[in-house]
Amino acid sequence: MAGKIPVSPLALPLPALPAIKGVTLGVIAAGIRYKGRADLTMMEFPAGTTAAGVYTRNLCPGAPVEWCREALKHGKARGLVVNAGNANVFTGKAGREATQATAEAAAKLLGCKPREVFLASTGVIGETLPHERLTAALPALHTSLGDTAWADAARGIMTTDTFPKASTRMARIGDAVVTINGIAKGSGMIAPDMATMLSFIATDAKIPAPVLQKLLTKAVNPSFNCVTVDSDTSTSDTVMLFATGQAKHPRVPAEGGAMLKDFARALNEVCMDLALMVARDGEGAQKLVRIDVTGAVSAKSAHRIAMAIANSPLVKTAIAGEDANWGRIVMAVGKAGEPADRDKLSVAVGGTWMAKDGGVVPGYDETPVVAHMKGREVEITVDIGLGRGKATAWTCDLTHGYIDINGSYRS
Amino acid sequence: MAGKIPVSPLALPLPALPAIKGVTLGVIAAGIRYKGRADLTMMEFPAGTTAAGVYTRNLCPGAPVEWCREALKHGKARGLVVNAGNANVFTGKAGREATQATAEAAAKLLGCKPREVFLASTGVIGETLPHERLTAALPALHTSLGDTAWADAARGIMTTDTFPKASTRMARIGDAVVTINGIAKGSGMIAPDMATMLSFIATDAKIPAPVLQKLLTKAVNPSFNCVTVDSDTSTSDTVMLFATGQAKHPRVPAEGGAMLKDFARALNEVCMDLALMVARDGEGAQKLVRIDVTGAVSAKSAHRIAMAIANSPLVKTAIAGEDANWGRIVMAVGKAGEPADRDKLSVAVGGTWMAKDGGVVPGYDETPVVAHMKGREVEITVDIGLGRGKATAWTCDLTHGYIDINGSYRS
Repeated sequence: MAGKIPVSPLALPLPALPAIKGVTLGVIAAGIRYKGRADLTMMEFPAGTTAAGVYTRNLCPGAPVEWCREALKHGKARGLVVNAGNANVFTGKAGREATQATAEAAAKLLGCKPREVFLASTGVIGETLPHERLTAALPALHTSLGDTAWADAARGIMTTDTFPKASTRMARIGDAVVTINGIAKGSGMIAPDMATMLSFIATDAKIPAPVLQKLLTKAVNPSFNCVTVDSDTSTSDTVMLFATGQAKHPRVPAEGGAMLKDFARALNEVCMDLALMVARDGEGAQKLVRIDVTGAVSAKSAHRIAMAIANSPLVKTAIAGEDANWGRIVMAVGKAGEPADRDKLSVAVGGTWMAKDGGVVPGYDETPVVAHMKGREVEITVDIGLGRGKATAWTCDLTHGYIDINGSYRS
Repeated sequence: MAGKIPVSPLALPLPALPAIKGVTLGVIAAGIRYKGRADLTMMEFPAGTTAAGVYTRNLCPGAPVEWCREALKHGKARGLVVNAGNANVFTGKAGREATQATAEAAAKLLGCKPREVFLASTGVIGETLPHERLTAALPALHTSLGDTAWADAARGIMTTDTFPKASTRMARIGDAVVTINGIAKGSGMIAPDMATMLSFIATDAKIPAPVLQKLLTKAVNPSFNCVTVDSDTSTSDTVMLFATGQAKHPRVPAEGGAMLKDFARALNEVCMDLALMVARDGEGAQKLVRIDVTGAVSAKSAHRIAMAIANSPLVKTAIAGEDANWGRIVMAVGKAGEPADRDKLSVAVGGTWMAKDGGVVPGYDETPVVAHMKGREVEITVDIGLGRGKATAWTCDLTHGYIDINGSYRS
């Protein structure tokens, strides 16, 4: 499937990812669904590694999400196993058996408890995961693990993605420098809460699990949770952060605090990088769209309005048609259900105010707007005119490519 | 624009519409936006006509919606003026001036108060309505009114519609027979609350305005409010019902009551007919989709789940691809945010249960499902397994046609 879809014109090159002290990883072709490509990815972490996770709010989550939620209560990780091609969602008892069997097989290889192994699956929903293929492939995969396979892992977790997604940053904790690597997959079924996708982030910093969890939640909100491709919330959304504790830096106190300021900055940047790559790889995407809402009654209200615009099929098809149809933007503001006064609304596209205070700007020149709409990155600004709440959301346009990809996914 | 789009394969033939005692109507080409087609529609009602209306819940409604809401407080109608091509939405002060001028011009011709004239506009948002063209065309239009032009009116209010929509029923009130005619337009920007669209219904029954309003609200809920094409809520949604009181039947009491049972049945059928025609003409629609949800904790919960399925781009593209992808249906149930237990869910397509109690039905045969998916009408049933709440929603598939139509609407 993936091979037939042209690479997104919004694709970014894969950055060089350094090794993370303590993390070894690798991929293998386990033949779960795809032929001739790696579809099983594994990471191994040393004893003492802490874990944090944020998962889908879809009320029919996949078995791996339920497994991770339970395992995360202990806050410790020694391994991660991810398969592509089958999401192990709505698979009933067989789904739970598959997670149990996979975690046990991995734990045996890693010399740890099953609950220290985290799992993620992505792909078709509702088909039984042939977990024997996973467990059969794990021993060979485990012996192949090394500290350089980040690019392979970014590719190994892909499904309908057209390019691999990764980001890396360095951060200072005290006098020491730590590294954060992240990979992600996702290009459809992307909506809050939790922009779809799987994303796995690792660092060599030594950070207690509760602090790690706070940092991750804070980083996910303005990034993954502000990206939408099609308003559909996946049953498998997973972002996990692992801290191996192998870097030498001053001890991080239980409450976290100022010492982690730069680390938080770097983590936020990695999450934002990855989230935007997901929007850039939105199924059929030809344009990346940034929506800034200002002047709402609160930040929450601004977020809801921004997401209503980002999720509107009529706004997204207009952008695909390079039509700065601000009328549809006004419609989307109105449908959000948040406080808005039509006569105080202003709309700008590419920095040009087309409508102000409830009507078209007199003598407004469409030329710069038309030029902006022809570009790969489209910026929409809406001022609600009521308060000081602001928010930003990202999406992509809605094109024939989306129909092509999703009208024949299983065939 | 409309001429370039092929007629929906789901189109129904226009029924023959009888005259409604007291109603005269007609159309004219006022040159508002379209060339060479009627774009201005007028109805005239006799003194004593009562009115009821249901309007969009979009918080940025068009000037005509605001006009109608205000006028409806008086419950009396003598005229209706509808233009296609320009929605008079987000047009600020100019929009209010346009509604005032149009109502005044029509009132002068009809010999009534401006507030007895109802207005609706549909088409592009955010462009000033050239209301001089309306008022200039009104005198000629008014002299041409007759009691046979229902089909012309159904065509005159169309925008991206590919076929005109009308329905008619007879109903018994006491020993008398009354008639109900309805016309509608709409094929995109269709979502609750108020499936987009304009719909105008008239009857010769004599029914007090408060009773009429109750009947209309009750008829709209299971029909127009259960249809969605693209989840976008129009700023102009309007359904109006006019009762001319020209039929001879026993006096309807102020509280309505049993005497109106058959009238309510007929009105409900007209609304359901028209609402389904809107789904059948969903932009790019190739298949009409009916979604039945049973076993939810309440009817409201069932409705929300049904609408979440109906609005899911991934479900709709799967249907376009004739793929009975029940996994995406489960996803949509989960994203609705309503009580659901994955392990109690069952999903049927075309009457064949594919998944029961949280997993695929063992030995389930896809053949009848595949055949059903190839048809023009697709039926999805989801049993939540928790209670007795049920609801039905209608939508259409999401196809390349939707992108074609909406990616170039203004061009």
